[in-house]
Amino acid sequence: MEPERIIADIAVPARRAAGVLAASRGEKRNAALLACAKSIRDDADRLKAENDRDLARSEEFGLSEAMIDRLTLDDARIESMACALEQIAEQTDPVGQTISASNRPNGLRVEKRRVPIGVIGIIFESRPNVTADAAALCIKSGNACILRGGKEAIYSNLAIAASLRRGLAAVNLPPESVTVLDSTDRELVPAMARAEGLIDLIIPRGGETLIRAVVESATIPVIKHYAGNCHVYVHSRANLGMAERIVLNAKCQRPGVCNSAETLLVDYSVARRFLGDIVTQFAEADVELRGCPTALTFAMMKPAVEEDWSAEYLDLIMAVKVVEDIDEAIEHINSYSSGHTEAIITDDVQASQEFIARVDSSSVMVNASTRFSDGGQYGLGAEIGISTDKLHARGPMGAEDLTTYKWIVTGQGHVRQ
Amino acid sequence: MEPERIIADIAVPARRAAGVLAASRGEKRNAALLACAKSIRDDADRLKAENDRDLARSEEFGLSEAMIDRLTLDDARIESMACALEQIAEQTDPVGQTISASNRPNGLRVEKRRVPIGVIGIIFESRPNVTADAAALCIKSGNACILRGGKEAIYSNLAIAASLRRGLAAVNLPPESVTVLDSTDRELVPAMARAEGLIDLIIPRGGETLIRAVVESATIPVIKHYAGNCHVYVHSRANLGMAERIVLNAKCQRPGVCNSAETLLVDYSVARRFLGDIVTQFAEADVELRGCPTALTFAMMKPAVEEDWSAEYLDLIMAVKVVEDIDEAIEHINSYSSGHTEAIITDDVQASQEFIARVDSSSVMVNASTRFSDGGQYGLGAEIGISTDKLHARGPMGAEDLTTYKWIVTGQGHVRQ
Repeated sequence: MEPERIIADIAVPARRAAGVLAASRGEKRNAALLACAKSIRDDADRLKAENDRDLARSEEFGLSEAMIDRLTLDDARIESMACALEQIAEQTDPVGQTISASNRPNGLRVEKRRVPIGVIGIIFESRPNVTADAAALCIKSGNACILRGGKEAIYSNLAIAASLRRGLAAVNLPPESVTVLDSTDRELVPAMARAEGLIDLIIPRGGETLIRAVVESATIPVIKHYAGNCHVYVHSRANLGMAERIVLNAKCQRPGVCNSAETLLVDYSVARRFLGDIVTQFAEADVELRGCPTALTFAMMKPAVEEDWSAEYLDLIMAVKVVEDIDEAIEHINSYSSGHTEAIITDDVQASQEFIARVDSSSVMVNASTRFSDGGQYGLGAEIGISTDKLHARGPMGAEDLTTYKWIVTGQGHVRQ
Repeated sequence: MEPERIIADIAVPARRAAGVLAASRGEKRNAALLACAKSIRDDADRLKAENDRDLARSEEFGLSEAMIDRLTLDDARIESMACALEQIAEQTDPVGQTISASNRPNGLRVEKRRVPIGVIGIIFESRPNVTADAAALCIKSGNACILRGGKEAIYSNLAIAASLRRGLAAVNLPPESVTVLDSTDRELVPAMARAEGLIDLIIPRGGETLIRAVVESATIPVIKHYAGNCHVYVHSRANLGMAERIVLNAKCQRPGVCNSAETLLVDYSVARRFLGDIVTQFAEADVELRGCPTALTFAMMKPAVEEDWSAEYLDLIMAVKVVEDIDEAIEHINSYSSGHTEAIITDDVQASQEFIARVDSSSVMVNASTRFSDGGQYGLGAEIGISTDKLHARGPMGAEDLTTYKWIVTGQGHVRQ
């Protein structure tokens, strides 16, 4: 069957389901989330059996040790998926909130009310628990979703979706609210991204190649989730002890995630002292440094090449650049950053205000590690991801970011003069 | 020169200008708007002379009487452009507003602050005053803009841009904040829509063909402004006198604009009486009706064909369909509407609530004419257009909708455990 046809056959019922979800009460959607948690727990044995089928093929797909670990579903991980569903049920319902309301001079009442977006397509290459989390945030916000996971987790993803659909049916909400594509045909990705009138939004999460392919083919809105090339900038008036702790944390605490830092910028006036101190600690932490010519004169490290400034290592590697001043630091960030998260370490309020105003990234940290850039830390509850786009949602995206609004205008026979 | 190169040569300085605007104070941007108003007034003679060059070619482009009228700049229209700039200066500044802020349990302060989007590309086929209005809303909201107008107004648009740039320069803001493309080469449209990293958002306003071409080629976000296929639904429990006044107003008060109504839906139980009464008034107003088979049994009109249900006549023509009940009305709207504005006329609160909840359009009117769907009527001040998209901004878009936000996180040396 043609990819467009496969997507339409799924999206048309999903659209009907979205209509039901949009008109449903928050209590009912919360009840569905609790029923989904129960069915995930009830289905634990089946989930593990299907997960075993994926694991049996991991060698065929050449998965690394780390990837196999992330793919594996055990009792603890199944329980934590169920708990996440329950936590999302407890969050505030964003749907139906009045964003603003006014009475116009002519007596018309104008209200801007939060409503679900409709059908959301999520394309991901990740752990199977993303299936449950993403679907739960969509149910919470009254949206239907179509999920397209990676081939290495297809049996696990389909099994999780089956559990969620049973949960939805248990409270009389349409099971078609959640669908995992049962084919991993690559042609389905552009077909989803061009399903105008059927899918309202595509959220791609994964490698840059995947996201770029979605953007190239898309005719419907896409919210991109590129990984982060995050910077820490040590200003001349930084507390250098604090700067050291933050730089080490931003680089080493969990190097494989998008909010870890990749480039260190240091003001010239403190570079000799700061770099001299920190190289030893980086060496102990097994971090490889790649420096600009000036940095090389202050401490032992490999020379950086142009590609290092835009690299997202997701590894124990860090690029180091000595800058003249805050202007050069901001210019470097705005040229090379992926727009995710940047930190300044300084005791100078004017410098931090300038950094905040001029750095064009979704999150700006002052005297804090870039690692705090996530929905949980910001108090959003669960997150669907971290948008590196500027439109609609920027930075960590929670359930509220999966809504749009509708203008409701009430008159008493008003006509326009 | 290649289209990509032409756009880059304009967008790179626009981007620098956007950085200056984003860091500028609202007072300064307002002063720029007042200076722009002054230079528009000072340049009135030059504007009229350049407008004459466009008018001299109107025959060559085969413009209709109405199009020539819209293209013409006289003293009154120049004065009203200047006044619009002054009014936008008086509006509340959306930039820098705190959208939300919280102190996290670990002592981090998390603030979500409104910031400009960056560089906005606006593609339009319309009256020259759109150049001034759109540029003014961008300046107000701290964005640079690149405007691509129609070939029939190129001299007028360039002249207006020159006046605005003098106004910006007068208060020491970069003139590159506003650029009108001086070529109307069609290849520049896809080049704008693919200028990733240079332009942040494209707003196309014009015919469906233009918008579709932008969407097909775009890799950057687009907010679509499709014209409206707006519906008025006369419910069985409507006050029929009120319904008549609203339907006539929605169709006839200004038929050439996007918020005028194109399709009338009438409940079967009141259709005979309502249609019998309204046909005479429509005939007097020179409106041609095109009815479904049932409608034809109740009143004299032409038979409608399938295309009529999705037509955006922008003319004195109206499609008429008799529906069984509210379910059929909502289903028809959600199938054929362009998602702009729909009205229900009813005295039944439950029916209006159901209509509000289930109709998937940007504006829903209860007992009011669709003609009220615009930024001025909603209290937004000037509008950049009416979005028929769901993402980022929906319905009338004002200056606030030309902003995004930035997360600002302040710690005292916080590192993640």
